Amino acid sequence: MYRLAKKIFPIYRSITGEGVRETLRILAEECPFLKIHEMLSGTKVFDWEVPKEWEIREAYIENEQGEKVIDFRQNHLHIVGYSQPLDVWVTREELQTYVYTQPDQPDVIPYVTSYYEKRSGFCMSQQMMRALPEGNYHLYIDSAFYDGSMTWGEIVLPGQTEEEICFSTNICHPGMGNNEVSGPCVLTFLAKRLMQQDRRYTCRFLFLPETIGSIAYISRHLAQMQKNIRAGFVVTCVGDDRQYSYVSSRTGDTLADRALIQILKENCPDYVSYSYLQRGSDERQYCAPGVDLPFCVFCRSKFHEYKEYHTSADDLSFISQEGMEHSLQILLKIVQLLEYNRYYKTTILCEPQLGRRGLYPTIGQKGTYDDVRVTQNFLAYADGTHDLMELSNLLHVPVMELAQAADRLYKKRLIKIV
Amino acid sequence: MYRLAKKIFPIYRSITGEGVRETLRILAEECPFLKIHEMLSGTKVFDWEVPKEWEIREAYIENEQGEKVIDFRQNHLHIVGYSQPLDVWVTREELQTYVYTQPDQPDVIPYVTSYYEKRSGFCMSQQMMRALPEGNYHLYIDSAFYDGSMTWGEIVLPGQTEEEICFSTNICHPGMGNNEVSGPCVLTFLAKRLMQQDRRYTCRFLFLPETIGSIAYISRHLAQMQKNIRAGFVVTCVGDDRQYSYVSSRTGDTLADRALIQILKENCPDYVSYSYLQRGSDERQYCAPGVDLPFCVFCRSKFHEYKEYHTSADDLSFISQEGMEHSLQILLKIVQLLEYNRYYKTTILCEPQLGRRGLYPTIGQKGTYDDVRVTQNFLAYADGTHDLMELSNLLHVPVMELAQAADRLYKKRLIKIV
Amino acid sequence: MYRLAKKIFPIYRSITGEGVRETLRILAEECPFLKIHEMLSGTKVFDWEVPKEWEIREAYIENEQGEKVIDFRQNHLHIVGYSQPLDVWVTREELQTYVYTQPDQPDVIPYVTSYYEKRSGFCMSQQMMRALPEGNYHLYIDSAFYDGSMTWGEIVLPGQTEEEICFSTNICHPGMGNNEVSGPCVLTFLAKRLMQQDRRYTCRFLFLPETIGSIAYISRHLAQMQKNIRAGFVVTCVGDDRQYSYVSSRTGDTLADRALIQILKENCPDYVSYSYLQRGSDERQYCAPGVDLPFCVFCRSKFHEYKEYHTSADDLSFISQEGMEHSLQILLKIVQLLEYNRYYKTTILCEPQLGRRGLYPTIGQKGTYDDVRVTQNFLAYADGTHDLMELSNLLHVPVMELAQAADRLYKKRLIKIV
Repeated sequence: MYRLAKKIFPIYRSITGEGVRETLRILAEECPFLKIHEMLSGTKVFDWEVPKEWEIREAYIENEQGEKVIDFRQNHLHIVGYSQPLDVWVTREELQTYVYTQPDQPDVIPYVTSYYEKRSGFCMSQQMMRALPEGNYHLYIDSAFYDGSMTWGEIVLPGQTEEEICFSTNICHPGMGNNEVSGPCVLTFLAKRLMQQDRRYTCRFLFLPETIGSIAYISRHLAQMQKNIRAGFVVTCVGDDRQYSYVSSRTGDTLADRALIQILKENCPDYVSYSYLQRGSDERQYCAPGVDLPFCVFCRSKFHEYKEYHTSADDLSFISQEGMEHSLQILLKIVQLLEYNRYYKTTILCEPQLGRRGLYPTIGQKGTYDDVRVTQNFLAYADGTHDLMELSNLLHVPVMELAQAADRLYKKRLIKIV
Repeated sequence: MYRLAKKIFPIYRSITGEGVRETLRILAEECPFLKIHEMLSGTKVFDWEVPKEWEIREAYIENEQGEKVIDFRQNHLHIVGYSQPLDVWVTREELQTYVYTQPDQPDVIPYVTSYYEKRSGFCMSQQMMRALPEGNYHLYIDSAFYDGSMTWGEIVLPGQTEEEICFSTNICHPGMGNNEVSGPCVLTFLAKRLMQQDRRYTCRFLFLPETIGSIAYISRHLAQMQKNIRAGFVVTCVGDDRQYSYVSSRTGDTLADRALIQILKENCPDYVSYSYLQRGSDERQYCAPGVDLPFCVFCRSKFHEYKEYHTSADDLSFISQEGMEHSLQILLKIVQLLEYNRYYKTTILCEPQLGRRGLYPTIGQKGTYDDVRVTQNFLAYADGTHDLMELSNLLHVPVMELAQAADRLYKKRLIKIV
Repeated sequence: MYRLAKKIFPIYRSITGEGVRETLRILAEECPFLKIHEMLSGTKVFDWEVPKEWEIREAYIENEQGEKVIDFRQNHLHIVGYSQPLDVWVTREELQTYVYTQPDQPDVIPYVTSYYEKRSGFCMSQQMMRALPEGNYHLYIDSAFYDGSMTWGEIVLPGQTEEEICFSTNICHPGMGNNEVSGPCVLTFLAKRLMQQDRRYTCRFLFLPETIGSIAYISRHLAQMQKNIRAGFVVTCVGDDRQYSYVSSRTGDTLADRALIQILKENCPDYVSYSYLQRGSDERQYCAPGVDLPFCVFCRSKFHEYKEYHTSADDLSFISQEGMEHSLQILLKIVQLLEYNRYYKTTILCEPQLGRRGLYPTIGQKGTYDDVRVTQNFLAYADGTHDLMELSNLLHVPVMELAQAADRLYKKRLIKIV
């Protein structure tokens, strides 16, 4: 996975353009089910409009000696996303109106965009800005806007039913590791693993430009999404090695919330829980009133909450193979849990006779029943109104241990699925 | 307001009689919308009957020297309310069967009534009683009972709808400041202020003899009250300078409870909360089973809970202009809150593009969104199922700040009222 | 009661056989309404089958000197319940495969059964086992299995309605005091006391072999039980002097749970509360999914939780007349509470005039109302949606004190039963 991250990290991405397409092509080499979709510039999507396609060819600041002070080829964050073309000489003082820094973090380059207002701008560290001597500077941006299209990727792995688990990530951020090459890499590998499995759930993976991409996708597919999606996860910032984070859906009680909490609680109990007030990625669209899809957010270090976020410090060194692999394992567990998460009901009135089925000791003496207690408790509570996660919490038994008990009982025809 | 309080304080009031009429006439001079209603003695009202009208002309205790030991003209609390006529000479010892004192507060005259059992009695401080020398005493009460009527006042300020906010207070207590001239004074001024406003809600103000007055009013208007009243407040003991008090409705979750709690929590967080078990004024009738009106109680020092309650110590010096004015401000805020308290729903699927409406920064850089967060959060939760108070609590934003955000969004047509 | 316990303690009981019949005959001498029922061996009951009747005539271990090392006539726990006939000589070492001890309690004989797997076995204390010298031992069991029947007892005390309170206990445990002669003794005496009362509820008492007995009973009577039983109690281990225990029903909120908790909370507030996860007696059947009867469990020292449980230490000295009598008093209080536990509603709108009914002081002065507060509060909350137990908890008044207030108000026709 880290190899894939290294491959797509150097590509310049924005919400439209060749960088997105190139990124998706590389992901498609890993997972051939990935399909690339285009939507024409100017298309109305709810309250928004797909912007013109933006191409950036060159962008630098040159001093009077012809030395390039900064060049966007050195670090993609040096250019403000969607900058207009520019070719001017300015004084040291005028330069400040074109340059963005992160004053509270003087040694990093911030990530800045201006998608919906015409601007031309550069980003650099506050330190570098302060160090610039008096003099004139040549600001040069060779960019172009044209009627093209916005691009996204989609993988669909059909299951036995149309009921869906949906994973969504972004492919519009340039030059950052955790936010955002970790998300597409982990989801591509998740798709590769799940390709080989038989599943009840159809799994869908979306690789979208943030905000405009999810709005565009929802505007096209809302009815189908509302009909099919049972649990959705925004997956972003999943490459570092720190604590996990969970951001609630608007209502906080969807199947997605419950599954993510269950798995984190059992596997990484020191995870941090955020309310929907701390939302910030495409869950803003999926959970919007009237859209009402069951999405929550899965991160390690959550966007907005770690210092390196949206700066040049969030580079390839901030993420790791181990970080992404562990995130992938958590996502696999979530899928596995959802596959097992049924409503079970006993098939027999009163307790079944477990002894003759080898599920209960045939000798009655105190202290001999402990190891069959999970099985007995499962049967005692399997009234068809609790799903596996609820049973796990009622019985204080890890959910996958309970899934095994369910399996045994199901094979003995002592429970049925409601 | 304090001037008005001084004007009505000296009038002798009981549950019927000229004192009530005189009081209401003075209030009507302040607020010309005040209408005076009469109900004939003997009228059946649910389980009760309107009592005969009672007139008290003279009441005193004289010693053998012809000196008046007490005279009800000096302090209205000296006479037991609804006393029968009396003209007897008694010994010092016999005197005790006619005189009520407050043994646990020896220096105050208690407030005592006997509306529904024939009695003749006087009240004095325990100290004064103890100091009386042996000898004979002349007890004289010149009172009269006759078929007259019971009187109450009512102000109705029509709003754009028939939905009502109702305020209820008492005008039957003689010679006490907080309980009870503060209530009628504050409500009269509240009506004066609200007269000048355009409102969605009709506002009704009731000035009633306690218990029998509210029972009589409800017996005549129950169906209409149940149809129209959205929030009702018993307003009493609102003239002192101490902490505010809230007494819950029977169910505790009416719009009235929620609005009063919201305003007290934000403006006077040290208010004291009482359960319906601590009820004691006309909420006993409004919240009775089968009546079920959404009333709670608003006080400063709550009846039964302050030492001066129902004694001569609750006089004009116990209340103040500042105390009443601040209570009035709280009530105005409650009306304002209720006017704003709608269920809002977004008009657009997914997030609207706030940038082009001037509601969002057009530059995307971390740390620039904080001041628009309230607006965004409002939209994110405006699903038509939460009213403004619930949103305020969900978003941790003061309710009137949220009302302003609602205003802005409503004008941009980004939300509608459900 | 203790005399009765002493009488039935020495009878050898198992899930079938003469011991059960003899025990029930003795109970029937105390309470003539007790009826004895039989169900033929081999009868299918849900997932189970009524086992063959088992008769045990002799069982001992003899050493080479012809001395009886143990004899089941000395202590009924020496024989494994439902042992097959046996007549073999074994070495000291081979002996161990036939003998059960309780290693964590070396000085007691454990209670062991093997109802559904063919075994022949003896029980003795670990100490005695260790002390046995090398040598050969004669194991002799004279038992027989034949097609007979399983026996249970039932008392029905009809009430004014078919609505039922059901009490269930076991009569299948040999040689133990708390578990299990205390249960049948207390219930027999409970029936004797209730025989003399007029009741709304029909009371049913079941004396069953554990598990197979309740399953058999339910299999015959399920529809009727679901229709009539309003509250059911498994009564077991009620003879010792320690703290009371409550084991929740599966849902935890049945009328039975509420009544038992209410009475324990008010009378024995140090009782211990167990979840349905700690169940263990016939509530396993009554509360099974699809059976769904409102049963919880009432014990003093709860089965599985006290050291003496299922050993020879749970003998007649472990229980006492006082222990059983106090348990009986608690059960009587529960019946009394359920009889009173109605939904009450006021018959009059607004407060009734209590004064003219002698329920309220006719003089109005602060401090005079405290003793009528319970009556007033009852009326204030009697809206037909709270039963007596809920009112007790809302008003913070012991439930039987509230029952008296209800009585007074009912007689004055101020409340009705909903």
